[in-house]
Amino acid sequence: MDRKQLVLGIDIGGTNTKFGLIDKEGNDYLMGSIPTNADQPAVNLFFRLFEEYDRLKKDLKFDFDLMGIGIGAPNANYYKKTIENPPNLNWGYVEVETIIRKFFPQPIALTNDANAAALGEMYYGAAKGMKDFIVITLGTGLGSGIVVNGNLVYGHDGFAGEIGHTVYDPEGRLCGCGKKGCLETYASAPGIKRTVLELLAKNNYPSRFREISFEELDAKMITDAALEGDKIALEAFDFTAKVLGTKLADAVAHTSPEAIILFGGLANAGDLLLVPTKRYMEEHLFHVFRNKVKLLKSELNEGKSAVLGAAALIWNEILKN
Amino acid sequence: MDRKQLVLGIDIGGTNTKFGLIDKEGNDYLMGSIPTNADQPAVNLFFRLFEEYDRLKKDLKFDFDLMGIGIGAPNANYYKKTIENPPNLNWGYVEVETIIRKFFPQPIALTNDANAAALGEMYYGAAKGMKDFIVITLGTGLGSGIVVNGNLVYGHDGFAGEIGHTVYDPEGRLCGCGKKGCLETYASAPGIKRTVLELLAKNNYPSRFREISFEELDAKMITDAALEGDKIALEAFDFTAKVLGTKLADAVAHTSPEAIILFGGLANAGDLLLVPTKRYMEEHLFHVFRNKVKLLKSELNEGKSAVLGAAALIWNEILKN
Repeated sequence: MDRKQLVLGIDIGGTNTKFGLIDKEGNDYLMGSIPTNADQPAVNLFFRLFEEYDRLKKDLKFDFDLMGIGIGAPNANYYKKTIENPPNLNWGYVEVETIIRKFFPQPIALTNDANAAALGEMYYGAAKGMKDFIVITLGTGLGSGIVVNGNLVYGHDGFAGEIGHTVYDPEGRLCGCGKKGCLETYASAPGIKRTVLELLAKNNYPSRFREISFEELDAKMITDAALEGDKIALEAFDFTAKVLGTKLADAVAHTSPEAIILFGGLANAGDLLLVPTKRYMEEHLFHVFRNKVKLLKSELNEGKSAVLGAAALIWNEILKN
Repeated sequence: MDRKQLVLGIDIGGTNTKFGLIDKEGNDYLMGSIPTNADQPAVNLFFRLFEEYDRLKKDLKFDFDLMGIGIGAPNANYYKKTIENPPNLNWGYVEVETIIRKFFPQPIALTNDANAAALGEMYYGAAKGMKDFIVITLGTGLGSGIVVNGNLVYGHDGFAGEIGHTVYDPEGRLCGCGKKGCLETYASAPGIKRTVLELLAKNNYPSRFREISFEELDAKMITDAALEGDKIALEAFDFTAKVLGTKLADAVAHTSPEAIILFGGLANAGDLLLVPTKRYMEEHLFHVFRNKVKLLKSELNEGKSAVLGAAALIWNEILKN
């Protein structure tokens, strides 16, 4: 039998860091997870991660070639192989390549989680066979990965694809980034919670949400309420879709993708979000783009998607050469 | 002496069609112009154009190899080599390749005028040596050409780069495309005229523009008035810069360019437009992009720029292979 060729995919999150050994077809042969411990230095995380990886590897019943290490992380710089002042992680500027070189000689590649998700969709998910598409991740924030002619767009500085920080309303909601009215203050899990609050203030009809604090509220509750016909929840989805659809039409005008793929927590609302978002997007599209651009839900297994995407970063470089 | 290698660059405009023989370095050896006669079929234009080309060619004192024909035209489709329902031209759907093949066997390439301008800047102008940049043409409309990693972004359907039809204000000015509040209804020659009218309506102080009709008014008058300190004209530039700067910040968030290059009539206002546009752009940029993106004026000779860009389309394909 041929010796297996596998890539170690690592997804660094604010709370947990997941990793796995992934083959070219997206099959996983080992999956692990450790706490990120964001208050400790980054080197500590990698040390614990590789220790756990070595421990789990002992159970594998076959030998393999490790082809490389792909990493998805917030504020990762593809060109410099660094992580730069990641939000929610107390790390500052991390030279990831220098750290990894102490453990592994294999090629490494890193990018932000949304870009990794885009490569994951291209190799293993809803964007298979596509050369021009955009992945939008709807979670705590709104991330985006833009693929043009089969390649991720990194831009001059490696940080391209920040559609979450395009402006919906210059006088709008305050964003974590310090600006006002960024798309992600509307279209994200916290964004739809803020919309529910606004709607409760604007209207005066009864709602289950009048008894729930902002901290207690989550996107899943809003989805469940909408599915049961709750008026505030339905209006919240409609408004979220309006903002998202308007800005997706702008994104289409830039790179004219074949499809836009929604990924992450809020995308699990499915048609509740997809159907009105598509309608608002079409309404705002320049006529040459109308009825051409698919709006799809991610086809990656959510538990593994980020690790698949991180691994795809290496597979992409191997398969392109 | 080596035999010269030249490309025939053609720029099809609403009123005139210009053409020229251009070498790899951007030198021109023959330049001509004929009326487009937009009410007559496209085949008529090409017939007259090639007749005039043959006539002018007789004066050349040297032999050369024609390497190809590059065409910049409104609504040109790069992939299909067609022009599709161009605004201001009564042509419908034109199979350009079929027409040209009756006259020439050489390679042909076509794209819209803004994309051609972007290639022109990359080979011969302000974007020399850059791999990631955006060209914005400010004329009757607002066109854009986006270059990522050294390649023009065509997108899935060949029509990418329509930043002029991203939305500034969903309830805003009616656009020629049928939508409301498109960027080009503010940032273009007619856009700044509309702004002057709004400012005349909003304010009541005297202005030279109170004696000029909308039809009489042009962007050059507004520039001249602003340079002389006219309050309405200065406010009009400030508002135009605000709208343009806000939307350019959005564009940066998509592809993270090294520079944005302004081209065409309104860009001739120079610092009057560039300085405030840069300030508003910086104000709306996501922090990772701040103080990184240059805002430049085109460095192409305006009379020849469109023909240079059209020729660059062929040189780009030759030099890439």
